[in-house]
Parts: sequence; structure tokens; C-alpha cells
Amino acid sequence: MKIAVDAMGGDNAPQAIIEGVLKAKATLLDVEFVLFGQQEQIMKYLSDDEDRITIIDAREVITMEDEPVKSIRKKKNSSLVLASESLKNGETDALFSSGNSGALLVAGLFIVGRIPGLDRPAMITLFPKFNKNNGFVTVLDVGANAESTVANLHEFAVLGKFYCQYLLKISNPKIKLLNNGTEWDKGDRIHKEAYQILDQDSNLNFLGNIEARDILNDETDVVVTDGFTGNAVLKTTEGTALNLMSAIKNEINHNFVSKLGGMLLKKSFKSIYQQLDYEKHGGAILLGVKKPIIKAHGSSNVDSVSQALIQSHDMVKSEITNNLTQYFSEMQ
Amino acid sequence: MKIAVDAMGGDNAPQAIIEGVLKAKATLLDVEFVLFGQQEQIMKYLSDDEDRITIIDAREVITMEDEPVKSIRKKKNSSLVLASESLKNGETDALFSSGNSGALLVAGLFIVGRIPGLDRPAMITLFPKFNKNNGFVTVLDVGANAESTVANLHEFAVLGKFYCQYLLKISNPKIKLLNNGTEWDKGDRIHKEAYQILDQDSNLNFLGNIEARDILNDETDVVVTDGFTGNAVLKTTEGTALNLMSAIKNEINHNFVSKLGGMLLKKSFKSIYQQLDYEKHGGAILLGVKKPIIKAHGSSNVDSVSQALIQSHDMVKSEITNNLTQYFSEMQ
Repeated sequence: MKIAVDAMGGDNAPQAIIEGVLKAKATLLDVEFVLFGQQEQIMKYLSDDEDRITIIDAREVITMEDEPVKSIRKKKNSSLVLASESLKNGETDALFSSGNSGALLVAGLFIVGRIPGLDRPAMITLFPKFNKNNGFVTVLDVGANAESTVANLHEFAVLGKFYCQYLLKISNPKIKLLNNGTEWDKGDRIHKEAYQILDQDSNLNFLGNIEARDILNDETDVVVTDGFTGNAVLKTTEGTALNLMSAIKNEINHNFVSKLGGMLLKKSFKSIYQQLDYEKHGGAILLGVKKPIIKAHGSSNVDSVSQALIQSHDMVKSEITNNLTQYFSEMQ
Repeated sequence: MKIAVDAMGGDNAPQAIIEGVLKAKATLLDVEFVLFGQQEQIMKYLSDDEDRITIIDAREVITMEDEPVKSIRKKKNSSLVLASESLKNGETDALFSSGNSGALLVAGLFIVGRIPGLDRPAMITLFPKFNKNNGFVTVLDVGANAESTVANLHEFAVLGKFYCQYLLKISNPKIKLLNNGTEWDKGDRIHKEAYQILDQDSNLNFLGNIEARDILNDETDVVVTDGFTGNAVLKTTEGTALNLMSAIKNEINHNFVSKLGGMLLKKSFKSIYQQLDYEKHGGAILLGVKKPIIKAHGSSNVDSVSQALIQSHDMVKSEITNNLTQYFSEMQ
């Protein structure tokens, strides 16, 4: 198995990327890593005799600030474009990047390509369920699409189901639709219609609407949402958690007694932070393109890069994209 | 000044409502409270000689489970319908309820009525800004509308501006549009167009897009959002904060050392909870109807009822609805 790695994408590239590759390599014994990027930069962090690592020299870099469509069109020799082409041509089996999200999305759609019969791929993220023994809820779309149709929401439910089945080994995942109330007639036109379509699809274990306040403590496995709302929910969750933890930190630094309390709770807070750390659970996945594409946060460190590479490996192993391709070809 | 109180709405009604009224009455010396509800139920919690309190017997009750439109149409003798009619007829100056939100919205739209020239009222909530010395950010619409047009988003910006000016005494409030990226060309069609309209309105201090993760720590005063996304963001904030605090509680109960740490941090956590407690800052406001309508959470306790009544008083005092009426009549 070969994983294409965009070695130049992300705030800590290439160092964190390459160290993450080395860490993942120790576990993933059946994987060859193909690193795309400026050879001399990459070689700074590699010994000469490293096995199972190939470097493809790519002179251009797509930055976090680059305009997605324009950069993919113009920077033909960038690490991301060359890595995407290797994926498209079957020279590699999965693509990992922690660079510009928009550019990765464009590369996925226009270089790698959608699964035939599917209208819109989705970005999937796992949210940690607090108090549920490290359980997860799979949420999609969290931002691949700014606008979603009823048919798209239906597709997202199928994508989420496949992800749970093939990656999380949940045989008949419980699916809910994110809406502004739990009753069947809630929401705007698109969400009302989507409820009906999901409810009528006997292949889906659809259990109705879910409100945003219950995402982290519900029993559901998949939350289906349009990309605009899903993106807002993902970022609100991050923002609230970060602000709350930082407010607690401030309170702890208030005086001697609170500082002592904070010291005694060091382990507890570490455990909370680990639950909060989405990166620990891998990257976000662009699902619905012909080959697995995995995106880690721009600020990813060695551990999160390694974790996302393990996830890339699992995606390939699971054959989820082949199975999705077959499903959507039968649907046509 | 007379405030109409729906004494039967909410999980803890009528007791919490009436005790909240008594608490607010001690501060609001220029207010007469008109309580709508089942007289014998209300009298249980009142002494006979209570001044500045009138009871209007209303036999029917709209429950939290009632279908909003149907209940307003059929339960003509409910506390909410009678209170709304008193507001419409000018017998009272503001309406407070902690009952069924949907029914309150319907009563606001169809009994009290919209301000002429305004297409859609909005539900406004104040989010506490952590680490900002008890600062707030005004967010709207958080759920009065399931579907919003570009013109509606423009109206929400005006409503938010007026709220900041008249209630929070911010002379030229900073306004941002909630979107899935900060660049001007982000979002779906409606948000792209709304950006342009807000940017062109020289009466608004519009500073561009804001992402959901920055709502709680940005310098902006008003966040404008469509009712569907705003509702999801409000509920995500609540859900994340509650789940995180409960996860911390579980960690603290883990062993003796962590319990001791928790005891030492008791004051710190209390302060955090107070910042988190949206109710402390009053209720949500339905702005854009002809008279002030204030909604507190269904689970409101004495303090939150009292706080929302003080807010109702401040709304009347500020003459915000008269000023909005004048503004929209000039716009026509």
C-alpha cells in the first residue's frame, strides 16, 4: 500500500509531517510513504537510508492563504497537485495533507474526482462523546459544501453509514438529521424534505431529527447535516470548548488555593484535553471521491499527523471507496 | 409601566414565575405586574394584599408539547393568548413568558404583530464572552425563522444594532456576519449576497464575516446569522459547555486527590458556572414585533425569571420598539 503525503502543507511542515510519517511507519509495516515536496527541505529531517520512503520533488507550495481554485490550477508543480495526480493515476492509494483545506477539496473534486453517481462528497469528522467511554459520533458534512440539496443530505447519510460500517465496525449505525427541533415537521424546506427521504429509505436506520445540543450525548452514530450548518457546529464546538478551558485556566491562576486545586486536578484536566483533542482521533475525511483523502488540522503536530496516517491506512484496508463506488453504480 | 406575565408557562410554573415576579417587584418600583393564569394556582404563592400585582384569570394552559399555531388559534382563554392580547391592546407594555417558545413566537407574530415595514422579527440572545470582564456578544437570529432571505439578514443587522444602542449603550456597535470563512466571497448564495448588502449600508458598522469558533472571543458586538444556523450555534454552545462541565465533574469524582482538587476549586467553578448561565443575563428577546416580548428558558428559576423581568422593564424604558417603528417607517 502506498500513501501519498503532502509534505509541505500545514503550519509545522515539513518537520511535523516527516516526523509523523516516521512515527506512523513504525506501526504501519505494510505501507510505503511517498512524500511530495521540496527534496532538500524534506531531507533535513530524514536519514539517507530510510526504507519505505520515496521523495517526489515538488518545487511549488500551496500556502494556507492561497485561493483554492486558482492555486490548484496554477501551481501544477506543487506538492498537493502532484500528490493528487499520483492518487488519480493509481500510483498511490490514499492522500494525506494538513495544508490548505479549500485547495485539498478542489484537488479532490477536480483531480481525483467524485465517485460516479454521487453528486457531492462530504467532509466527515468524528466528535468525541464525553462520558461515553471514548465513543464517537460521526458528523457530516462539516464543510465540503456551502450549499446542500435534499439529495445531497441523502447521500451524506449513505456516506456516514458506510464510514461507520467499514471503519468503526458498527453494523447498523443509527442515523439522525440535525435540525432545529426533534419533531418531523421542523426546519426549513430542505430539512423537512430530507426527513421524509431519509425516513423512506429502508436501507437506512434513520431515527429522526436531533438538535445540536444533543450531538455530544446522544446514542446516535451518524449526524447528517448540510455543509453550512455542519461547519458552524464544528467550529462552535471547538470555540466553546477552547474558551471554556481557557476560562477555567484563568480561574485556577486566580490565587494560591485555586492554583493548588489546579495542581491536584492536573491529571483530570489532561484526560479532558485528550478527549477534546479531535486530532488524536485522526483527521477529517473527504468521503465520496474515488480514493481516500484525509485532512489533518493546519496546526497538526507529530502525533496527529501519525494518527491521521494510520487512519489513511485503515481507509485503504477497509476498501470503503470501492464499496461506495459499487453502491452508487448500482443506484444509478 | 405594566408588564404582562404568562404565569402558567414553563417547567416550574406558576411557582417560579410568581416568586420571580416578587423578586423583580422589589427592584422595579415603577412597574405593575399583570399576571395571566389560573387564579387559584397563582394565589397559592401570593399574599392577599400584594400591591402592584393584578391577576387576570385565564383558564387554559398552553403546554410545552402543544403545537404552536394550533394552540394559539384554539386556546383563546390561555394565559399566553390573553396576555398577548393585552399587549396588543395597549393595556400592558411588555410581555414575559417562559413557556412554549414556538407558541410565543406565533403569538408575537399574529396577535401582537410585526413592526410595519419589517419582514421578519428575530430572536436575540446574549452570549457571554469568556475572559472579557463580563462582556457580551449579541447574536441573532437564534431561531425565530427556519429560513432567512438576504433582506432578512439585513434587517437582523439593524435589529442587533438597535439592541446594542438602546439596551447596552454601545453607540456604534461592531457588526459581523456568521459565515463558513472570513473572506468576503465565502458561504452560500444568501450569505455572499448578505455580505455585499451589509457592506454597502453606510448606517452599519459592518466589519465582515466571522467564523463560529470566534463568537465567544471576538471584539464584535453583533453577530448576524440566519435563524437555522443561529439556532444550531446556540444549542451547540449550550451542549458543548454542559457536556464539558459534566465531564470535568466526572474526572473530579475519580479519586481522593482529584476530589480534594475539586474542593479547592469550588469557587472557581462557581464563577465559571455563573458566566455560563445565560439566564443570569436575562431571556431571549423577540425583536421586531410592535411591543417588547421576552422569553426565558422553560427551566427558568426564580433568579432567571426576575432577571428577564428587569430586562423587560429596560426594554420598555429604552423605547427601542418605538424607535424601530420609526426607523422602518422611514425606510419604506
